[in-house]
Amino acid sequence: MDCIFCKIISKAIPVEAMIYESDFAVGVLDIHPIAPGHTMILPKVHAETILDLPDAALEGVFRAVKETTARLKEVLLPQGFTIGINHGRVSGQTIDHLHIHIIPRWENDGGKSIHSVVQNPPQESVEAMAKRIRNK
Amino acid sequence: MDCIFCKIISKAIPVEAMIYESDFAVGVLDIHPIAPGHTMILPKVHAETILDLPDAALEGVFRAVKETTARLKEVLLPQGFTIGINHGRVSGQTIDHLHIHIIPRWENDGGKSIHSVVQNPPQESVEAMAKRIRNK
Repeated sequence: MDCIFCKIISKAIPVEAMIYESDFAVGVLDIHPIAPGHTMILPKVHAETILDLPDAALEGVFRAVKETTARLKEVLLPQGFTIGINHGRVSGQTIDHLHIHIIPRWENDGGKSIHSVVQNPPQESVEAMAKRIRNK
Repeated sequence: MDCIFCKIISKAIPVEAMIYESDFAVGVLDIHPIAPGHTMILPKVHAETILDLPDAALEGVFRAVKETTARLKEVLLPQGFTIGINHGRVSGQTIDHLHIHIIPRWENDGGKSIHSVVQNPPQESVEAMAKRIRNK
């Protein structure tokens, strides 16, 4: 397996920036942080996206997100977080192993909400879209 | 309880845009979509943030995220997704009931990655920061 995240998880590559580990996931500080404490949660199982993550791993992986968010809040005292996944090349995923970003946020950090990532509103009404999604 | 998302979940407010329901969560199209199929997953339990979400709800809520992402992929054929949480006012949370945004993404939609939300890199090295977070 030539996945760099799998090598971090197996400790084939030692990472000084590891801040969390459980049976299901590790948490490592991003080496190109966009904010103090910017962390990635990596599921131990190799899954390219959340669609490939076994249901049995969901609780453990998102418990890692919850516990790491709590820890970052306790130590760094941010006022909020942006928590999210770039899913697929088109949204900015560069390593094909699911990782959930936890980005601490502060007043006056100059940042925006997740809504700022794209402005591509649909032509179709929300009601028509919902019907199409439910019925297909 | 004066929470609009709790009213949507209990169906006190009928919502034509509901596209998913399980024992743990509902999925509704955002009424101000930033992309076709822009959906919010709302946990049925009232929790302000992921830190308040009971561990027993984690699997069900993120299974809702996974299943709804799969459904949107099947119907709308996007090339990717931005999936994320605005956690706290400072990051853009406007309703105090946890909601996970699922935003379908296409080539040439003009959008960016989650990394575009903030540029606030730390002064401290990643190694020093990790030590501080582990040791506190």
